[in-house]
Amino acid sequence: MREKNLHAYIVPSTDPHIGEYIPDRWKSREWISGFDGSAGTVIITLEDAGLWTDSRYFLQAEMQLESTGIRLFRSGLPSTPDMLEWLAMTLPSGSTIGVDGNVFTTADVIRIESALATKEIGLSTDYDLFDEIRSDRPAIPQEGIFELPLEYAGVSASDKIDSVRSALRENGANLVIITALDEIAWLFNIRGNDVECNPVAVAYAVITESQSILFTDAKKISRELHEHLDRERITTAEYGRINSFLSTLPSQATILFDANRVNYALRKAIPAHCRIVEALSPVALLKAVKNETEIAGFRNAMIKDGIALTRFNIWLEEHLHEREITELDIAEKLYEYRDEQDLFVGESFSPIVSYGEHGAIVHYHPTQETNIPIAPKGFLLIDSGGQYFDGTTDTTRTFVLGEISEQMRKDFTLVLKGHIALASCRFPQGTRGSQLDILARQAMWNEGLNYLHGTGHGIGHFLNVHEGPQSIRMEENPVKLQPGMVMSNEPAFYRNGEYGLRTENVVLIKEDIETPFGKFYSFETLTLFPIDKAAIDKSLLSEKETWWINDYHMMVFDKLSPKLEADEVEWLREKTSAL
Amino acid sequence: MREKNLHAYIVPSTDPHIGEYIPDRWKSREWISGFDGSAGTVIITLEDAGLWTDSRYFLQAEMQLESTGIRLFRSGLPSTPDMLEWLAMTLPSGSTIGVDGNVFTTADVIRIESALATKEIGLSTDYDLFDEIRSDRPAIPQEGIFELPLEYAGVSASDKIDSVRSALRENGANLVIITALDEIAWLFNIRGNDVECNPVAVAYAVITESQSILFTDAKKISRELHEHLDRERITTAEYGRINSFLSTLPSQATILFDANRVNYALRKAIPAHCRIVEALSPVALLKAVKNETEIAGFRNAMIKDGIALTRFNIWLEEHLHEREITELDIAEKLYEYRDEQDLFVGESFSPIVSYGEHGAIVHYHPTQETNIPIAPKGFLLIDSGGQYFDGTTDTTRTFVLGEISEQMRKDFTLVLKGHIALASCRFPQGTRGSQLDILARQAMWNEGLNYLHGTGHGIGHFLNVHEGPQSIRMEENPVKLQPGMVMSNEPAFYRNGEYGLRTENVVLIKEDIETPFGKFYSFETLTLFPIDKAAIDKSLLSEKETWWINDYHMMVFDKLSPKLEADEVEWLREKTSAL
Repeated sequence: MREKNLHAYIVPSTDPHIGEYIPDRWKSREWISGFDGSAGTVIITLEDAGLWTDSRYFLQAEMQLESTGIRLFRSGLPSTPDMLEWLAMTLPSGSTIGVDGNVFTTADVIRIESALATKEIGLSTDYDLFDEIRSDRPAIPQEGIFELPLEYAGVSASDKIDSVRSALRENGANLVIITALDEIAWLFNIRGNDVECNPVAVAYAVITESQSILFTDAKKISRELHEHLDRERITTAEYGRINSFLSTLPSQATILFDANRVNYALRKAIPAHCRIVEALSPVALLKAVKNETEIAGFRNAMIKDGIALTRFNIWLEEHLHEREITELDIAEKLYEYRDEQDLFVGESFSPIVSYGEHGAIVHYHPTQETNIPIAPKGFLLIDSGGQYFDGTTDTTRTFVLGEISEQMRKDFTLVLKGHIALASCRFPQGTRGSQLDILARQAMWNEGLNYLHGTGHGIGHFLNVHEGPQSIRMEENPVKLQPGMVMSNEPAFYRNGEYGLRTENVVLIKEDIETPFGKFYSFETLTLFPIDKAAIDKSLLSEKETWWINDYHMMVFDKLSPKLEADEVEWLREKTSAL
Repeated sequence: MREKNLHAYIVPSTDPHIGEYIPDRWKSREWISGFDGSAGTVIITLEDAGLWTDSRYFLQAEMQLESTGIRLFRSGLPSTPDMLEWLAMTLPSGSTIGVDGNVFTTADVIRIESALATKEIGLSTDYDLFDEIRSDRPAIPQEGIFELPLEYAGVSASDKIDSVRSALRENGANLVIITALDEIAWLFNIRGNDVECNPVAVAYAVITESQSILFTDAKKISRELHEHLDRERITTAEYGRINSFLSTLPSQATILFDANRVNYALRKAIPAHCRIVEALSPVALLKAVKNETEIAGFRNAMIKDGIALTRFNIWLEEHLHEREITELDIAEKLYEYRDEQDLFVGESFSPIVSYGEHGAIVHYHPTQETNIPIAPKGFLLIDSGGQYFDGTTDTTRTFVLGEISEQMRKDFTLVLKGHIALASCRFPQGTRGSQLDILARQAMWNEGLNYLHGTGHGIGHFLNVHEGPQSIRMEENPVKLQPGMVMSNEPAFYRNGEYGLRTENVVLIKEDIETPFGKFYSFETLTLFPIDKAAIDKSLLSEKETWWINDYHMMVFDKLSPKLEADEVEWLREKTSAL
């Protein structure tokens, strides 16, 4: 930093594709701080260093930052300065902040520049310091790309590309740069192995009125894949050629540009003579609304996942009292049972298996250092999911391992009431997720309780387990909920140092009724696994809520039992019997 | 328009102060179209003319526009083009649109300009055509301004001005232009008579670090008022001097500027050498959070309003079967009973008295042309309120005049469930109104029903019955709900051609509990008048909902009965007896 006359350097958690899960090459924030949560930013000045992360990671970051000299800034608390406020307070006028423009969105760079302009602090976007200091830095992954056959994708790449072109015309544009790896994978019906848990390949894509170009390393493209790409009229170019491609665009190019997705280095490459039309990536919304094949695939994946979870749970109950079982043992067993299922590819995220007070660390993942044995008492929170060729799953259950307190039972039931309220609501066309979020929280709010993370995220089809553009959370998000969107429903509650609990199902938005007052939509729950009745305080449930649980459990039984062995069926019958 | 080479002219519903209720002088939209709703914009081209208004006014506008040659565009319906879209479609490139920059916010002008720039349609902001064509145009009102004594205002003008100066410093500004008449009235503890139902005076105000200037006509200022202004160190200048004052501001002036409040003519007057800091008007939020004196005044005003409504309702029941009573008779009687109350100044808005199918015309006001007699059957919807020196009221009740159908009873009860859900919720610090709105709608949504207007608006203290900046509605509004805010809670339901119903109380946001999970707030209902039990289907209410109604009615009885005559007390006892 001193050599380059930088007074601060910002290390974000993302990569040139603004991913959440990213290849090791770009995990510089983790490399420098030791903090391996999915969200967090490190700022280093010549005298100080801090990590900003959100409430999901407060406890984890506190532990991982211990004796690193990096201070923890808890984002979202009223007393915590915003990163840019802190920089403005800390740096004198005339300072320069360095960033790597490749790993910041255009919108972020503009936001940083304008926030610091009044204090006359400059921003230089050309420094990837880690290329120099991280000597063992991994290369860009070189895993092969494979086709996702039409029987799973449902719509051909060329049809999807046509939809993108329609969106371009509607926006008065004739070119779009696609940087998000899951958008590229969805659009071209391809999958890869470059990112842990996300079946995507490192690439860029450009769609024009006449061309579809995939920018990725030639080594990743097999002969079979070339045939697929040829059929879909997708041409290829080397990954690194994207910048020079953009820099030579003619003046007729009118670029549909999502400043929240395209990194600043690409933005800088675009010649000034091109017109820019600011708009959301058209692929994000197209991808979020699942087609019939994808929906059928999800349903199928849920059955397989339910079978795996059933077998795991039977194993757990059988061995809980017999031998020592650790969080890591459980993660391994879960993997084994999922791995037995048809079309299983891998986990959709690193599983959260958190026992007792670990449950309150929202995104806890057991490691050799943190791993603890479970005991026949209290709560065990498991949030896990699988990637199958036909769908992606994401399920959280909080298991009662033995004795629990009245408070635990009440907390569990309040979360369940929120889960049911959201699962069973009906809402008009045009509704946004932030309008529905309160349904999941109201029972808790009435008791003065709350959880600070979102309630629902979009889920990709054999793609990223977290996807946008829609969400269900307290914060405003202008994206309207639409039939065909697949999302999570995951209210939760955490008591630091004691326990955490969460009940998460995947839901599908469906058309419901149409009246003179408009079209109404509702959710259909796709996930198939019992909610632990031992944790429910039935006296807190309304008749309708009890009915919902019983109805859900009946569906779970009906859909899973034909695929289970006789003893498993008996186990499931008991777990899904009426409250 | 032809003389001035204008191809379209836009006539909005507002005035230079961007008011909702406005002096006659600026009611040009009403003058040219006959449509007298509070919201609506007319666009005139050389060949065509249209009025855009929202769902509250669809039925009313349809009737009032009949045979005017002005087409009705129903805003908010998917098939209705936005005004600017329509202009872009209708006008050829190179056209010029005219507006009067005095009656458009700066933000509106910028929005219009940028929306039409791509089609090369120009905007000229210097034309107030109505000065030429409206020969009998009323002058700016010249009513006297009076002081609102500290015993009602609670905080002195100079203390309020100090708060504004703090807000200026926090925003790095040293001057603010205040254009909203209610903000000026609140800030300076003055009231006026220039606008029907709004006790405000036509004026501008400017606050700098050392000066407080009231721009208003000298004729409006009595000797007593001068003494008040002198005491509070407020100087005065003629209304028309505001533009020249702004145009001579020195380059040190850093102006806190709310582009959604300051009209474009004033914006144009500001020299380019001044710095502009875009921010919400600091007065709006200060005014929205009521002080203890204002809150006590509201409570007192609600008792008086409850007495007036009680006496009115007794009168109505006594005469309903005896003589013909029309909507206008009812409006008159309501006025009489309110007028008997201490410190009553006038109505807080033109009362909505709508019988039968008129109830479905959301903002129906009876006139000589529309007036109908009521009959002893069906619903009578009355939405009315008073201005008292100590507070402003706004109450809607739907009265059962005789036989009603099962559907009417069910609709009424669904609206009531929404009303109760909102009235009794608890929510954490930081919550926005759009997060709570669903509580008022959920029972209706479950049945495929909805109402398209907002659920709650802010209410001024002896000021405008509609005020911001907070709201409770489906649309996002980033303003956080804060203790001390006074709002309406008014879910509703309308069946066109049949009936409408609405149950509206005024609520106060209060601190509720503080837990390790943060501060939580809740609503306290201030309005004191029974909800018609004859319309309730008790079988649709939960135990808690029934309890809320009984509890509310007990409070109404306890607070009103000490002020009523013996026979009135008996009437109220029956109306508030337990469900």
